[in-house]
Parts: sequence; structure tokens; C-alpha cells
Amino acid sequence: MAKTLKIAVVERDRDRAVMIVDGLRDAGDHEVIVIGDETGLSRRLSEINPDVVLIDLENPSRDVLEELALASGPMERPVAMFVDRSDLALTQAAIEAGVSAYIVDGLQKQRIKPIIDAAVARFQMFARVRSELAATKAALAERKTLDRAKGILMKSRGISEDEAYALIRRAAMDQGRKVAEVAQALITAAELLK
Amino acid sequence: MAKTLKIAVVERDRDRAVMIVDGLRDAGDHEVIVIGDETGLSRRLSEINPDVVLIDLENPSRDVLEELALASGPMERPVAMFVDRSDLALTQAAIEAGVSAYIVDGLQKQRIKPIIDAAVARFQMFARVRSELAATKAALAERKTLDRAKGILMKSRGISEDEAYALIRRAAMDQGRKVAEVAQALITAAELLK
Repeated sequence: MAKTLKIAVVERDRDRAVMIVDGLRDAGDHEVIVIGDETGLSRRLSEINPDVVLIDLENPSRDVLEELALASGPMERPVAMFVDRSDLALTQAAIEAGVSAYIVDGLQKQRIKPIIDAAVARFQMFARVRSELAATKAALAERKTLDRAKGILMKSRGISEDEAYALIRRAAMDQGRKVAEVAQALITAAELLK
Repeated sequence: MAKTLKIAVVERDRDRAVMIVDGLRDAGDHEVIVIGDETGLSRRLSEINPDVVLIDLENPSRDVLEELALASGPMERPVAMFVDRSDLALTQAAIEAGVSAYIVDGLQKQRIKPIIDAAVARFQMFARVRSELAATKAALAERKTLDRAKGILMKSRGISEDEAYALIRRAAMDQGRKVAEVAQALITAAELLK
């Protein structure tokens, strides 16, 4: 529960930065790094490698909002974005960019930590779904590759699908490679040789 | 921008319900239905079929929170949940259950509409990813079915993979069915006949 988080706070305004840092300190023993200048944000965050990014923007334009949202790496880590004013289009832009929490007019000291908690939980949940999607897409792509490779062997050697698969599998085991890699190599070779 | 939403508000407390309804009315011409008693919530919401559900719970237990989150159908429509107090475990439970917005100590009249906007945007974004995942899983499953069906034909008729696929495709066109359906029928038949 009381895991220490490394939190990067992107905040130009000094008073607001102090308030945010106080709010986070009250809520636990967190390491807080304040970034007062957004120049080179993406690189700065790569160096800091925080667990969470908190961005406070008073009244952003859509361009600034999208730029900072993307620079904060919302697919790599939870990003909570606070704005004083928003509209539907800005809200949609922030959420499409991947921020894990988007809070309008809600920057209050005692509310910061619950919002960070929610951002972390939402990031983890979404990351699981994205990773399941990536794995399923990879399985589908591998299957297509394997099918093409089997087809090539079946035709060139006049063997059955089972036999073709057994050959590919045996080659993969002998060479310590993955079935999908051997299948891809076979397709590449067949294209070169035809 | 000013699309009229049908919003179901789940709220036991009469004063808070009035405040929420006022906040939503101030923000636009929305249809608001207040549900004061959570009994049979899932069925009630199916009847109402709202665009958004807003649930306000002062200080929920984990059981109550999870029950109401699930009853509100967070995979079918955006659900925004307001609580007065929370902790990390409760926050995680709510987000895992699928609520699109989880707000701790943030029930203020002027903040309700921006939160509804964010909940709708997040729901739509997540629904797209879930639907892409479902489509990819279906494609993978169909491909496996088709492979098995082709294998059966290749073996029983001594034909190539291409010929087997052509046969299945032809049968599907002749019968006005999907390739995957014909493939599944073939597998079922082969199991019965063997």
C-alpha cells in the first residue's frame, strides 16, 4: 500500500508546484522531482524514469496539451494531467493521447494522491489489455507465416500438412530457433529461389 | 458538442441528488433520471438504457462498490463513480471492475459535467481497444478452424492446401455461408464420421 513512488511533476508555476509537492508529501514518502520547464520533456523523463508523471496546465491550447501528453510517454507510465479549464474536444484529445487521468479544475492538495492512485490503477489495467492485444496480433501473424511456410513445403516436397509442420518444427529444434523464425526464413528463401 | 445525454444518477441522498441534477442542468439540456434505490439496478438500467451512469457512494465497502460497479454495466456504457473516501485497494477494485471515471472527494456541482465528458471519452477509447482485441481473437480462432478443416480435406482427398481452401470457399459461396462456418461444419462432421 505504502509503496514509494518516484513522481515527476511538470509545473511552471512555483506556488502551485509547492502545493503539489506538499500534497504528495502529506500522502506518503514519495520521491518528487519538479520540472519547471517543459523543454525537452521527453528526454528529461527518460533520464528520470519516474513511476508517475503529473502535469499541471492552467489553460492549455490543444497543441500544447497534445504535445505534452505525448512527450510524457503515456504508454510507458501513468500520466495524470490537471487543467483549470477544458472543453469536450480538449478532454477527448487528452484521453486519446493516452493520459491515465484527466482532471478539470480539481487541483487540490488533498485530492492529488487519490488521483495518482487512480491513474496508476488505470494505467495497469489498460496496459494489460494492450499487451493481450499485442500478443494476439503476434499469434495471428505467426500463424499466417507458418501457414505460408507449410504450404511451400507441401507443394515442393509433395507432403502432407502434418509432415510439413513436423519438418519445420524439427529444424527449429535443431537450430535452437523459434518455429515462426524458421517459417519466415523458409518463405524468404523460397522467394529468392523461385 | 452539445449532444443531449440520457444520464442515470444512482444516488440515495436526496440533497446530493438535487445538487447533481442541478449541475447537469447547468451544463446542458440533458435528460436525467435519478435512481434512489439500488435494488435491481442492473435491470433498471437495462430498461432506462442511459448514455451514462453516475453513481455516488459516500463511503462504500468493497463489496458494495464492486456490486454496484458491475450492476451498472461498465462494459456497455460509461460509468462515473463518485466516492467521498477511498484507499488504494478500493480504487483498484473500481477501475478493474471497469468504471470509466473514479472520483474521490470531488463531487462539486461545476465539476460534474467535465467528469462525465472524460468518462464518455475514456469509455469510447477503451471500447475501441476491446473491440480490436475481440476481432483479432476471432480472426485467430477462425484461422485455427480453417486450418483444421483444410487438413481434414487434404488428408481424406489427397489434395493440396490451395485445393482444399478452394473447395471450402466454393461450398461457402454455394450455401451463402461464411468460410469459417463451413470449416466448423466440416470439423464437426469429420469427428462424427471417424
